Amino acid sequence: MTHYAAPLRDMQFVLLELAGLEQLARLPGCEDATPDTVEAILDEAARFAGEVLSPLNRSGDQEGVRLDGDVVTMPAGFAHAYQQFAGNGWNGIGCEADFGGQGMPKLVVAAVQEMWKSANVSFSLCPLLTTGAIEALTLCGSAELKAAFLPKMVSGEWTGTMNLTEPQAGSDLAAVRTRAEPQADGSFRVFGQKIFITYGEHDMTDNIVHLVLARTPNAPEGVKGLSLFIVPKFLVNPDGSLGARNDVRCVSVEHKLGIHASPTCVMAYGDGGGAVGYLCGEENQGLGYMFIMMNAARYAVGLEGVALAERAYQHALNYAKERVQGPEIGSRTGAKVTIIHHPDVRRMLMMMKSQTEAMRAVAYVTAAALDAARCHPDAGERKRSQAFAELMIPIVKGWSTEMAQDVSSLGVQVHGGMGFIEETGAAQHLRDARITTIYEGTTGIQANDLIGRKIARDGGATIRAVIGLMQGLDGQLAEQAGDDFAAIRRALSGGAQALSQAVDAIVATFASDARSASVGAVPMLKLFGIVAGGWQMARAALAAQRHLVTGEGEATFLQAKIVTARFYADHVLSQAGGLAYTVVNGAPGALALSEEQF
Amino acid sequence: MTHYAAPLRDMQFVLLELAGLEQLARLPGCEDATPDTVEAILDEAARFAGEVLSPLNRSGDQEGVRLDGDVVTMPAGFAHAYQQFAGNGWNGIGCEADFGGQGMPKLVVAAVQEMWKSANVSFSLCPLLTTGAIEALTLCGSAELKAAFLPKMVSGEWTGTMNLTEPQAGSDLAAVRTRAEPQADGSFRVFGQKIFITYGEHDMTDNIVHLVLARTPNAPEGVKGLSLFIVPKFLVNPDGSLGARNDVRCVSVEHKLGIHASPTCVMAYGDGGGAVGYLCGEENQGLGYMFIMMNAARYAVGLEGVALAERAYQHALNYAKERVQGPEIGSRTGAKVTIIHHPDVRRMLMMMKSQTEAMRAVAYVTAAALDAARCHPDAGERKRSQAFAELMIPIVKGWSTEMAQDVSSLGVQVHGGMGFIEETGAAQHLRDARITTIYEGTTGIQANDLIGRKIARDGGATIRAVIGLMQGLDGQLAEQAGDDFAAIRRALSGGAQALSQAVDAIVATFASDARSASVGAVPMLKLFGIVAGGWQMARAALAAQRHLVTGEGEATFLQAKIVTARFYADHVLSQAGGLAYTVVNGAPGALALSEEQF
Repeated sequence: MTHYAAPLRDMQFVLLELAGLEQLARLPGCEDATPDTVEAILDEAARFAGEVLSPLNRSGDQEGVRLDGDVVTMPAGFAHAYQQFAGNGWNGIGCEADFGGQGMPKLVVAAVQEMWKSANVSFSLCPLLTTGAIEALTLCGSAELKAAFLPKMVSGEWTGTMNLTEPQAGSDLAAVRTRAEPQADGSFRVFGQKIFITYGEHDMTDNIVHLVLARTPNAPEGVKGLSLFIVPKFLVNPDGSLGARNDVRCVSVEHKLGIHASPTCVMAYGDGGGAVGYLCGEENQGLGYMFIMMNAARYAVGLEGVALAERAYQHALNYAKERVQGPEIGSRTGAKVTIIHHPDVRRMLMMMKSQTEAMRAVAYVTAAALDAARCHPDAGERKRSQAFAELMIPIVKGWSTEMAQDVSSLGVQVHGGMGFIEETGAAQHLRDARITTIYEGTTGIQANDLIGRKIARDGGATIRAVIGLMQGLDGQLAEQAGDDFAAIRRALSGGAQALSQAVDAIVATFASDARSASVGAVPMLKLFGIVAGGWQMARAALAAQRHLVTGEGEATFLQAKIVTARFYADHVLSQAGGLAYTVVNGAPGALALSEEQF
Repeated sequence: MTHYAAPLRDMQFVLLELAGLEQLARLPGCEDATPDTVEAILDEAARFAGEVLSPLNRSGDQEGVRLDGDVVTMPAGFAHAYQQFAGNGWNGIGCEADFGGQGMPKLVVAAVQEMWKSANVSFSLCPLLTTGAIEALTLCGSAELKAAFLPKMVSGEWTGTMNLTEPQAGSDLAAVRTRAEPQADGSFRVFGQKIFITYGEHDMTDNIVHLVLARTPNAPEGVKGLSLFIVPKFLVNPDGSLGARNDVRCVSVEHKLGIHASPTCVMAYGDGGGAVGYLCGEENQGLGYMFIMMNAARYAVGLEGVALAERAYQHALNYAKERVQGPEIGSRTGAKVTIIHHPDVRRMLMMMKSQTEAMRAVAYVTAAALDAARCHPDAGERKRSQAFAELMIPIVKGWSTEMAQDVSSLGVQVHGGMGFIEETGAAQHLRDARITTIYEGTTGIQANDLIGRKIARDGGATIRAVIGLMQGLDGQLAEQAGDDFAAIRRALSGGAQALSQAVDAIVATFASDARSASVGAVPMLKLFGIVAGGWQMARAALAAQRHLVTGEGEATFLQAKIVTARFYADHVLSQAGGLAYTVVNGAPGALALSEEQF
């Protein structure tokens, strides 16, 4: 068993030193997010995550969810924990105040959500999906629909789901077949089957509000014929009380590799005559609404990568500090030591620590940009921030989740044979993390978004500006004394150069030969993620050094940050050149074989 | 569900073109392994693997093993499959003829074993452990012990186990506490508990022969006080019939992430007064015997990496050829295609294919060296072959199993959301593969063996000779026309140079600062594995080209081999420079933090 303790010190450091929390709190609409208030929120969230959610993580994994008829029973303790979660007001922390939310900036919400995800990722998916449904409703719902559903969704009294894919569709929403037939009263009857519906059914709340993509009669083919509908599990009476049970049922729950405590449902709509649905927004605009929400959803899944890496790291670190095995290298006494003394175990822990910190920094900086894009008084700054955030979203999603595979696998490895035994709990993090590179758009989909919409579309302008910021650190890094900064400077310079070469290749290739460019998409995503992480770690090292010089802050933490940035430079940033080589040269070998030659 | 079809064409290519099967069959003691005979053996093994073992892989995973009292019940079908396996003579294929084996060279055994491991790795562990026990007995058993146990173990009528570690010991065998008390009749009574005992108990055979490391009274402390004992589940009467039940019991089976159909047992010795054991070899020499067998065991686990990568590849490839989703990039019609048409799916499949083929080539070439080390008439050649094989064993074990993590994870990724659903079966390969970097010595242990005993001890002489062989291909590669060979040549040249730099750094550092050298151990292992794989793929491309020129062989296969080698060069070999950078520069950042700073 493992206890989760939120990494408050690192979170605060990233919020203040890298993501600019103080500056953010000066923006209109973000005034409540003062550093003091945020510190109090994070302390409280850390307590809830550690004391309520974390203890249910392992038991939830072992127990899983149970389907009897169309009733899904959650693992023991989940319903009670959820009621506390909603009762404490955590559900609406990032929602607009109009319907009861606290309107905290995305930066603050990111730090809080990281804790839920580290403590119990299965649990965290329920409020995550509710948040997505709230955003959709806020975005495109009529005043009536908002009044009927939003207050209870913001409070967490009801949860929400997103119903997109179907068995034949997968990532290709053009293939969605669920249909919605208009009724005389303005409502619709929805018919069809949806798969992979997270928290499609559960026993934690009285009602569940499903958002469903479906086609109206005579809608255009493909993605241009999708409309968005609200289909509540129970209809809502005019007075707000619950009415009749709607014709939507959970007919199956998946048996999955991980996130066992999160019900992944097959939902059947209309088997008994049609599920009552309400059109949300305009007809045939469903995919557009989904796209607007997609950034938030992808960002949130990227944060799962950060969070699971953190959890795996804590688990492995605790073990490495306790497990005694073998003597230290070069020991004359042969005295046994804890395994953290063994260089390869240290190397693994530093890989986990440095990559997790780099991912967190990239994610929080991106959240701050999303806030600036919304709140900054200067239109140019809003536009630049939006462009930066959109560039980074596929990195937060794609890179953090890919790295979470490596980090959680290293967590198993640190445990040796015990890591393979389920009771140890290390393997759960690996199993839980495995979905994150898949849902909300696979890594391949993120990477194609990156090279197409985010890089090639503006001719590389946005990413080249970011590379300019990276290179702009060179002078400051050169001014610092010591080997650590020399190593960081050298690796960041090499990384930025490699990234620049790869960007040139992608921009040059994309328009003329999109297939070839696409072969380099995932290597490009990893390259950009690694270099962006190195950039943030270099900024972190510089900030730490500033504080060390002035004597503010905790010296051992600040020194560790510099060492961690240096480790990252030598062990992770060093991969940049090889990835750039693949982006530039890798297409012909990937595309030459005929199908039969595989 | 997925069908396993042994990759006979690639196996034959590697055996003949890279591992020198024809030359091997001319060595004394290997004359039976003519290419025709080997082809017949492989065809037969492929049939057994595909028709008998593979269908039990998924059901075995789902059903798992059951412990009632001290009785372990295997999943349905396993006992029957095992009896066919033994009845067909597969168990003794590599054993000496004296006790009923067929004495096939290790190269041939490797190809056959790869099939068992791909088809059903849980099943394959039973004969693998028996083989280990047979080798130990053959190595150090008295004539009486051999006569009593070997014939039935070689035939497979009885199985064997290896009992090394204990709860407090892990990888540190110096901490073993199990004790053996001498009796007046020359036997011993064994007392203690052993953990992680693969197939320590099962219902497939009448008897199980345990090999157990234990301490005699007054034995020296640490690893120099370990002796090896034979402890059969049932004692054997002088006439060979089974006698009394011995005092050894399975008291628990582990609940593991993968290999669910392989019972991992906690074994209790002597709870009822002492388990009867027989000293095998000389007192206090137990660890030495284990070390001699270790090469074979580590090699075999490395082969599991190759085999699971192959299985995951086949699974993903079949899916990619069947699953229709989305239109091809640049398609004007929007017609849906199978996902193998999507560049990133191709890239993933090529990563899986090229790395699996590279691993197979390295593994088989190493097996051929083990055969030459045993059978070559020239003493110098035997010595060189032995040195080469010992250098490569940690690569076959460490690199192949690390790559199997990546390849099996890619296999899940190719499946998208379906990959996360257990029914699909893709996740099983990932779960099964996860143990391979841990047991028989973790990757860290392999890597420290590599840099210490295999590189630093001879001042880098053996590995530099291998680098010389790699560089010796340059002229031949330069002579070939076309971009593919130019790409292969460029990447191999860069890889060999990077490897050379890393070797220089390790040799220079190891004696003076073993801790720093050890930080670079795993990066060095991966670097050497990647470059060795690229070397073999370059040899494969040259051999394929020779056949294309002469018009022999299947052109589409030979052309695919060249393309695959080129893909490997651009996507995998390209990582060499970054890894060498880490080997050379990575120590300070890994070692600087105090324990409290983590």
